[in-house]
Amino acid sequence: MKSIETYQKQFLAYLEDYKSIREPKNLYEPIEYILNLGGKRLRPVLTLMTTDCFEGDTNSALDAALAVEVFHNFSLIHDDIMDAAPLRRGHQTVHEKWDLNTGILSGDAMLIMAYQLFENYPPDVFQNLAILFSKTALEVCEGQQYDIDFETRHDVSIVEYLKMIEYKTAVLVGAAMKMGAIIAGASEEDQNRSYEFGRNLGIAFQLQDDYLDAFGNPETFGKQVGGDIIENKKTYLYLKALEFSSESDQQKLKNLFSTQTTDTKDKVEIVKQIFNASGSSEATKKAIQHYTSKAFSGLELLTISEEKKTVLKTFGTSLMDRTV
Amino acid sequence: MKSIETYQKQFLAYLEDYKSIREPKNLYEPIEYILNLGGKRLRPVLTLMTTDCFEGDTNSALDAALAVEVFHNFSLIHDDIMDAAPLRRGHQTVHEKWDLNTGILSGDAMLIMAYQLFENYPPDVFQNLAILFSKTALEVCEGQQYDIDFETRHDVSIVEYLKMIEYKTAVLVGAAMKMGAIIAGASEEDQNRSYEFGRNLGIAFQLQDDYLDAFGNPETFGKQVGGDIIENKKTYLYLKALEFSSESDQQKLKNLFSTQTTDTKDKVEIVKQIFNASGSSEATKKAIQHYTSKAFSGLELLTISEEKKTVLKTFGTSLMDRTV
Repeated sequence: MKSIETYQKQFLAYLEDYKSIREPKNLYEPIEYILNLGGKRLRPVLTLMTTDCFEGDTNSALDAALAVEVFHNFSLIHDDIMDAAPLRRGHQTVHEKWDLNTGILSGDAMLIMAYQLFENYPPDVFQNLAILFSKTALEVCEGQQYDIDFETRHDVSIVEYLKMIEYKTAVLVGAAMKMGAIIAGASEEDQNRSYEFGRNLGIAFQLQDDYLDAFGNPETFGKQVGGDIIENKKTYLYLKALEFSSESDQQKLKNLFSTQTTDTKDKVEIVKQIFNASGSSEATKKAIQHYTSKAFSGLELLTISEEKKTVLKTFGTSLMDRTV
Repeated sequence: MKSIETYQKQFLAYLEDYKSIREPKNLYEPIEYILNLGGKRLRPVLTLMTTDCFEGDTNSALDAALAVEVFHNFSLIHDDIMDAAPLRRGHQTVHEKWDLNTGILSGDAMLIMAYQLFENYPPDVFQNLAILFSKTALEVCEGQQYDIDFETRHDVSIVEYLKMIEYKTAVLVGAAMKMGAIIAGASEEDQNRSYEFGRNLGIAFQLQDDYLDAFGNPETFGKQVGGDIIENKKTYLYLKALEFSSESDQQKLKNLFSTQTTDTKDKVEIVKQIFNASGSSEATKKAIQHYTSKAFSGLELLTISEEKKTVLKTFGTSLMDRTV
């Protein structure tokens, strides 16, 4: 049974070959820079793993895996501009290191380069991959728009929030896996089940991100614990706390989330207390469990060997057991 | 013989059907807005016209024509951000009417939507169109990067300048025509000749833009005559004037193009005089003629009827006879 590291290594070697700076340098250097910033490469690993699960050749899945990774990094560049983020993975963001125009244009080029990575597949596979990719990419844009819209809205429902994280995060995980299934020549049913596994895992992953941002271990979390609370982000934890709270606690929470305070430590502690007392923390853990179980039970229906199911399950479990 | 207006009408009716605002509104309203701003729709008309020339059904070329127009408008949104342009066709630019983030994200969505417009073609046609489209789109990004780079460079050569306008403007005209040829099932040779016709016409068109910006009739030109000079843009006229001038005139020109003056009327007049006296105006007119002739002589090699050649020639001539 191949380990996750095996797929990671295979992908990173291919990524290494891909990076070659072309002219004009000011367009392609930022692309090399962002692709070099690291990260766990979860999405491309899932593409390779899924091809492997359906007894396909992982080498033939490398281009699609790279397309997913290039697209993901395109979205990071443009999102970082929109969020005015100075740092990404501990390094300067592209628009900070260069400038706004470079961020826009290098991002645009990456979106096109992602499509180009499908060109070596036979016409029917190419079309299947490109159609799935376009649908997914547009949903990611829609998810980002909902996220922006939610910042200034005060009536976001749980259903709307779940749709936002599904579009912004989960559909790309689903698509990464479905691409692996398409390349391996899996049946349409298996393709769609792979997608559903990835999509549900992606939602669970994002909800866990929300949870860890407040309740993660500060020593291993990497980011500042409580960052979402300080930035007044309306996460699942926040929305559930509103739903479960008395009117007075609701008002308290709304007030806390409508101001920028300098005493962030106090604010984080008070909000976390409300998250716990209201039952929101528990509800969030349950939701994570719900989407993880949904992913795993769909997995049982895949027509792949038990050994391969174990590979996917191990991967999913390792993701969900993370504390970082 | 169909007139240009016939193709325009056919395209505009199709565009009308395409525009339907989806959710989230803040993502799709700016897209409808920019597609509604008008323009001559030259590129999509060329796609339809080329399909017609090769005896294909223009209805089957509408999706590709629309893809070209959607892509063109994507590039306008992002370019307007990079140029900090307040107006486009006399109306507010997207980032002005909405904001920066909307401009970035709606543009991204349009790039993806352009690819989606190829999805209804059979797999092999789809792949051909998408490969051509990606190559072209990436070149447009490269052309934009060169244009940005040239702003701060003082050693731009004529060869580099021509490559910049080829990438930024001409390749999309070539691609628009080649798509029409691909859809009509033209031979690869005819496809490539269609591309060359469009590419050369596109270069001539852009050079003429440079020329008219300085020497157009103020009453019919639409834009402010001398705009490029006021903005210190290193156009073909400027680069040729540098090449042809004495060292003292070179210095004078360089000085004029390194400051922001409030007395723009005087500056425009002095620069135009240098353009004329140096022989640069004449050289620019010759270059326009050169690329137009190149386009037309390539046209002769197309295996289409004489009548169809006349259609293309009439179109090219009407473009080159414009004073606006």
